[in-house]
Amino acid sequence: MKHTTDWSRERCLDLDRTDPLASARSRFALPAGIIYLDGNSLGALPHGAVGALSRTILDEWGAGLIRSWNQAGWIDLARKTGDGIARLIGAKAGEVVACDSTSINLFKLVAGALAQARTRNPQRRVILSEKGNFPTDLYMAEGLAKLVGDGAELRWVEGDNLVAEFRPDVAVALFTQVDYRSGRVLDMARLNAAASAAGHDIVWDLSHSAGALPLEVGRDGAELAVGCGYKYLNGGPGAPAFVYVARARQAGFPMMLSGWLGHATPFEFIPAYQPAPDIARFQCGTPSILALRALQEGVATFADIAMKDVRAKSLELSDLFWTLMETQCREYGFQCISPEEHAKRGSQLSFAHEHAWPIMQAIIDRGVIGDFRAPNLLRFGFAPLYVRFIDVWDAVMTIREVMSAGDWRASKYQSRNAVT
Amino acid sequence: MKHTTDWSRERCLDLDRTDPLASARSRFALPAGIIYLDGNSLGALPHGAVGALSRTILDEWGAGLIRSWNQAGWIDLARKTGDGIARLIGAKAGEVVACDSTSINLFKLVAGALAQARTRNPQRRVILSEKGNFPTDLYMAEGLAKLVGDGAELRWVEGDNLVAEFRPDVAVALFTQVDYRSGRVLDMARLNAAASAAGHDIVWDLSHSAGALPLEVGRDGAELAVGCGYKYLNGGPGAPAFVYVARARQAGFPMMLSGWLGHATPFEFIPAYQPAPDIARFQCGTPSILALRALQEGVATFADIAMKDVRAKSLELSDLFWTLMETQCREYGFQCISPEEHAKRGSQLSFAHEHAWPIMQAIIDRGVIGDFRAPNLLRFGFAPLYVRFIDVWDAVMTIREVMSAGDWRASKYQSRNAVT
Repeated sequence: MKHTTDWSRERCLDLDRTDPLASARSRFALPAGIIYLDGNSLGALPHGAVGALSRTILDEWGAGLIRSWNQAGWIDLARKTGDGIARLIGAKAGEVVACDSTSINLFKLVAGALAQARTRNPQRRVILSEKGNFPTDLYMAEGLAKLVGDGAELRWVEGDNLVAEFRPDVAVALFTQVDYRSGRVLDMARLNAAASAAGHDIVWDLSHSAGALPLEVGRDGAELAVGCGYKYLNGGPGAPAFVYVARARQAGFPMMLSGWLGHATPFEFIPAYQPAPDIARFQCGTPSILALRALQEGVATFADIAMKDVRAKSLELSDLFWTLMETQCREYGFQCISPEEHAKRGSQLSFAHEHAWPIMQAIIDRGVIGDFRAPNLLRFGFAPLYVRFIDVWDAVMTIREVMSAGDWRASKYQSRNAVT
Repeated sequence: MKHTTDWSRERCLDLDRTDPLASARSRFALPAGIIYLDGNSLGALPHGAVGALSRTILDEWGAGLIRSWNQAGWIDLARKTGDGIARLIGAKAGEVVACDSTSINLFKLVAGALAQARTRNPQRRVILSEKGNFPTDLYMAEGLAKLVGDGAELRWVEGDNLVAEFRPDVAVALFTQVDYRSGRVLDMARLNAAASAAGHDIVWDLSHSAGALPLEVGRDGAELAVGCGYKYLNGGPGAPAFVYVARARQAGFPMMLSGWLGHATPFEFIPAYQPAPDIARFQCGTPSILALRALQEGVATFADIAMKDVRAKSLELSDLFWTLMETQCREYGFQCISPEEHAKRGSQLSFAHEHAWPIMQAIIDRGVIGDFRAPNLLRFGFAPLYVRFIDVWDAVMTIREVMSAGDWRASKYQSRNAVT
């Protein structure tokens, strides 16, 4: 990490004054006295969600009751919200739908891609993934392989040369573009080209990418992807996830979690499944309208904002954080495990430390919220719509205080909670 | 239908005055001028949900942010809400969890039961269901059979003698206790005993039972069930569904939709799936906290209420509706297709009519909300917590007015909407 510049609190304030995204912060209801560096885990509350949810609860559910499926447009909300997400990831309208959880959605896509691959060539029986992938991705693929049987198998690989693993028995790869631990970014265009040449699909998990990186799924050859609604998309705790399927892949794609809202004519109530020809096929059961409405407002926080500006600020923020950690906290043993190269770094930084858990708890108690990831990582995310340069400065100074005062040694910080 | 009594509006008002459930109506925010007979499709808004959602949005999401997973108990909300549902269906605490959609949940249970049956005896390869079952049940089973392959098959049957279909090739039956069209109730205890004797499981869909009938899943031998949160449980549009698994079946049950929240130690982030030993196993991805909070409040509307009182009032309401339709609307050609016998009737009545669609639209425009079910049914549900005897009287009088005035012949009622 280069840190040739002398930083100061004043210089950070200057950067905030000239930040083209500065006004976006007013779109969020942020608590006083808190520096929030965990938008990569749960995005902040948009002001728009407060009003929209109130109307949805009182006017649509309370007064409109069942009529709101038509009159308030509930029936189209999953697709409309999907269209909003499409813009952020470089997809076209009609290529994204918001529904279910990331886990369920990646099951849909991996199951369908696996079935298509095996139909073409029964030798293709392997779901390829990285051992360090987010566990739910691995768990869902493991469950799918068990369900399908007949030689289907999840294969974990490690290391940087993923293309070398694109062997003839691979049916589909399941990769998370931005690693949840390190923030490492995979080269989507290059891997898609290699997979295409090798004759298999990649299902992309964009959970730590959507709303953070300027994705171009169409241009970069991605045909199948899922992502999370409650991180950078600000959709609220446990928000619906999304499914992206390139238009050309939709009509023929086998949808095994074939619920009624994916049916071509759900309200005819016919006993045989006939999948919708379009993105509606990737819906399953009835979606939570409250959850979708919050997600719609979360996505709306990106209105009039270019993802390239989001990316530029994200890298400036993480560069600054890293530089300050090196200069201000050098003696405390933090080891940054995130990639230094911009092209390989998402919107977060992770620092290894043998006392990561108690240190993170002590930092949180001083009002700087990041999170802990087992076994030994302190993780800090930079959501450029609401994180300021001054927040980065103050956060590092707080970490320095916690380390120099030894707050984290307090006994109350030594035992881990259920959730981190 | 017997109708030996002379009914009057005054007599209905008297019944409301002595109704032991009368005060429960004040738990709901019901719109003025509306008679709501569609709580079997979307339950009304509980006042408690308004306040709870406001706190969850502003205090927990907005101010608490990621800390609320621990501090506001989000991580336990699915199980806590499940415990509330358990009481209503005759299950024990720790046997129900609220999560995902009914479609996804029945996939979990049918997939696991099918796998267990095939392991014991490969001949058992059939998922048995009724052709008239709610379509998503059939669609999900069809998708599962396709995914599993190797002879797995969905078999639809029709007619009253389901036990005769419990053949040696049946792996698992999937039955909805209360038919969504007719309201017919299946005898759970008898069918469970017969299935047990025949050597296969039944997965019960309790979507139209939970909150309407005094279920006793434990006593009646049900080990696997799912149900809907947004009908009689008043959980809000698209509320999370629930999964019931009898304690003795939990630890060994194969969970194929193996998401991270079903893991024994989700926050250890280990790459291999190790299912939780208890009901937590049946969770998959991260649940919507907004949706769960609303469902928790919906379930709370049953506080201090005995399901036998709910059932008694439900039958009185539907008896009255039927009687009044026969006496007041005799000449208009409505044909009730719901079972007359109490033991066989759920909490709804359905009337066939060749002009069912336009008639229902005209009734709704006069403030009486039921719904239409293809191809020719007018469906009326009686949610005893908030439907009054006077509502039944006024609803039938409105139907009589619509029929005698011929409102329903207006051209605006002739073309069907997307959702009914």
